[in-house]
Amino acid sequence: MSNAPLGEFELIARYFAPMAAADALGLIDDAAVMTPPPGCDLVLTKDALVAGIHFFPDDPPATIAQKALRANLSDLAAKGATPLGFLLGLGLPEGWQEGWLAAFAAGLKQDSEDFACPLYGGDTVKSPERLVLSVTAIGVVPHGRMVRRGGGQPDDILYVSGTIGDGALGLIERDKQRRGLPADEWLVRRYLVPEPRNGLAHALLQHASAAMDISDGLIGDATKMAAASGCGLVIEAIRVPLSGSVKLAIAMNPDLFETAITGGDDYEILCAVPPDAGAAFEAAAKAAGIAVAAIGHLTESCAVVIRGSDGADMIVGARSFRHF
Amino acid sequence: MSNAPLGEFELIARYFAPMAAADALGLIDDAAVMTPPPGCDLVLTKDALVAGIHFFPDDPPATIAQKALRANLSDLAAKGATPLGFLLGLGLPEGWQEGWLAAFAAGLKQDSEDFACPLYGGDTVKSPERLVLSVTAIGVVPHGRMVRRGGGQPDDILYVSGTIGDGALGLIERDKQRRGLPADEWLVRRYLVPEPRNGLAHALLQHASAAMDISDGLIGDATKMAAASGCGLVIEAIRVPLSGSVKLAIAMNPDLFETAITGGDDYEILCAVPPDAGAAFEAAAKAAGIAVAAIGHLTESCAVVIRGSDGADMIVGARSFRHF
Repeated sequence: MSNAPLGEFELIARYFAPMAAADALGLIDDAAVMTPPPGCDLVLTKDALVAGIHFFPDDPPATIAQKALRANLSDLAAKGATPLGFLLGLGLPEGWQEGWLAAFAAGLKQDSEDFACPLYGGDTVKSPERLVLSVTAIGVVPHGRMVRRGGGQPDDILYVSGTIGDGALGLIERDKQRRGLPADEWLVRRYLVPEPRNGLAHALLQHASAAMDISDGLIGDATKMAAASGCGLVIEAIRVPLSGSVKLAIAMNPDLFETAITGGDDYEILCAVPPDAGAAFEAAAKAAGIAVAAIGHLTESCAVVIRGSDGADMIVGARSFRHF
Repeated sequence: MSNAPLGEFELIARYFAPMAAADALGLIDDAAVMTPPPGCDLVLTKDALVAGIHFFPDDPPATIAQKALRANLSDLAAKGATPLGFLLGLGLPEGWQEGWLAAFAAGLKQDSEDFACPLYGGDTVKSPERLVLSVTAIGVVPHGRMVRRGGGQPDDILYVSGTIGDGALGLIERDKQRRGLPADEWLVRRYLVPEPRNGLAHALLQHASAAMDISDGLIGDATKMAAASGCGLVIEAIRVPLSGSVKLAIAMNPDLFETAITGGDDYEILCAVPPDAGAAFEAAAKAAGIAVAAIGHLTESCAVVIRGSDGADMIVGARSFRHF
């Protein structure tokens, strides 16, 4: 099914077999076998990414591969799951080069090893106009313990991991970089290679009432989590953790705060933790080496309130954002 | 991530939630949870399909969906696995119509129910130029029992299910039909909606030493199975089961026999069965209501021999085919 210059068999043997799971049979069978740990539930997630929509076609091939896998690892982390493995659907455009594929596979193999998430199979096809990727990731949680999006209760504390807005502002910087303009390399890197918080999975399993990863913007995703939990929320803008680069950008252009808290590609964890478990959750996150910040709480009303640093509330819709 | 006219949330709620597994949480969470049966191994497979390459963009939307799912169900069947569920990556082209999607989803839901293979999640994105599908299917077998491609032994009998060549000749008929010419509707249907042989899974588990589904042509796939088993093979051309439509086509144009045994899209099962288990395998297949035919056997030599009805051997390479 693949195209020149390499046959599908050689392509698999050369680039994908080296990251295959031991029970994936070297990827030469029609399917892989996976023995799930006893007493566990599987957690299943799938993300599709299309060149020109989810990434730039000229992004480094290693980072395209890593972002595709990491987006799925981030979903598993948010559910409290430990990765078991992944499958890859790869649609290669006309004129793909073996050097490109070698770099793509090297990036993927690195992450596959670093996150202990081996390859269990996939399919390589032609996608004439543009690169298309589809990753299915499989994780495990103890039976009945997957952290849901809708388990939050009023007064639960809202936490986020890491820093917010690096992805959205990194996209702006990446765009500058592509046009040959000076750009913040740290932000570009945050956009290209997000950091899935799989180290936080255990703390979430132990303490979170609800969680999701932030891929479509903090405010929109927090609104979804609150709605799924039958709650409203208050977020205090000043408590949203920001990186030095984002703080600097906002100091120069205050409108970028809105971009930071509504833009996508953070891949940080948003979770709700009952008030009496907050200290234990913070300690568990610290032990895992992952920074978390309490940014607000869930409420009984269904309103979504963003409290500004001046004390004035900003009311935010599911995706849109307006002061009043 | 989706595009007009329907938001991704509505699209999922309206078209995909009705075929979701009970533990897929109505597809509103970031991931689905699946509780695997105790003592089982998972069998994982993934197929990607691209409009204009694996199907015609103007094929009926229900059959596009069904073929994508069935190609994966066929892989599970060949491995002796019982389907547990699937995930769908859907890249919708510019200008997609809700009527198209409704028909696509209806076809998928029908098969999802008929094959007891519910939806566990997925992702819907834009794929500007053409429809792209990626299906990951998950099945189960008793621990350690997945039927491999490489387990065959010399003298094992080679069986195929159903009839061979309907897919390849059906593609020719479908092409005629698209050009407004008279076409064999039965063959067109066989090409558009292959019949995965999931009913044969138990018989394969019980009796087969090796198996795979025939998606890239009987001869090429049999060669792969023999090679994976460290064997050669003999296939007697006259014993390859052919449908009435294919027999008729070959009677009019004998070259089509080569097309039938080397063309793709059969989605029948090829398996190797030890000689002393042949009768039991045939009885189990009969009990499952699936026709199987012994077409040859594995050999100790590594030669791939197709024995013609005239007694002359045709020697066949991995994919190519020549008389001598």
